[in-house]
Amino acid sequence: MKPSTFVLLLLATLFATPAFAADQKSATGADLLVQLEADFAKAVAEHGHAAFVTYFADDGVELEEGGGIATRDAIRQQPAWPEGTSLTWTPVKADMSASGDLGYTYGNYVFKSKDKEGKPVTYCGKYTSIWKKQKDGSWKVVVDMGNSSPAPK
Amino acid sequence: MKPSTFVLLLLATLFATPAFAADQKSATGADLLVQLEADFAKAVAEHGHAAFVTYFADDGVELEEGGGIATRDAIRQQPAWPEGTSLTWTPVKADMSASGDLGYTYGNYVFKSKDKEGKPVTYCGKYTSIWKKQKDGSWKVVVDMGNSSPAPK
Repeated sequence: MKPSTFVLLLLATLFATPAFAADQKSATGADLLVQLEADFAKAVAEHGHAAFVTYFADDGVELEEGGGIATRDAIRQQPAWPEGTSLTWTPVKADMSASGDLGYTYGNYVFKSKDKEGKPVTYCGKYTSIWKKQKDGSWKVVVDMGNSSPAPK
Repeated sequence: MKPSTFVLLLLATLFATPAFAADQKSATGADLLVQLEADFAKAVAEHGHAAFVTYFADDGVELEEGGGIATRDAIRQQPAWPEGTSLTWTPVKADMSASGDLGYTYGNYVFKSKDKEGKPVTYCGKYTSIWKKQKDGSWKVVVDMGNSSPAPK
């Protein structure tokens, strides 16, 4: 059963609080980016897709594998993940601009969910996240992209 | 027939000249990034994979769809594209850090080639390129990633 758009929007509103948002951090440079990714991953581990969308900037996009260029509104309207879904990711590299306002990490992700028949499925892939410091000092994702990796042996 | 690694390395060496490299430009900010992408695309249109690899930084990587995280050496050792292959791409957005040393573009690509039976195939997808100004003032790609889009109707 897909939750209605209303419920999704309600959840998104409830969860779009400073408790989730990537606040200004004491770390700088690449360390800050790794910390942002860890906070992002923790929020997603605890709250799933509803937390995922709150990490995107107003003009942030997800370049969906097999799909299009999804704006934040489009991401918000994606169906919630099925119960038991998990998305975890591990940066391999992080790098920051000299001005400390734009940076990126890339690495590997594991997405575990259920298929239409309810059978557990695992997708392994790679991701790139580009982070930009917002006018209010918070950090948000401006580009998120993933693609597939070979299945683990 | 796959060209030998020797031939690939020879080609890569021949083509790794300033004629291909993304030199310092008069444009700045997002305009510079769009210009870099246009130069990059032109070089690839004219010289294929041999030009592709010369646009990567020493520590640049390609996050290969269905593959791994390829270093520049690994990219260099990829088989050359079959005769008649073309890769074109169009930025949808470009953004630069305040310090003007790190930026990105994302957009759409079209890859036309031939399958194992020699039949023409077309893949449509999206890409993200992250560019970083190098110590010598040139601009190189530090991350290149692509994923698939739905086939055009």
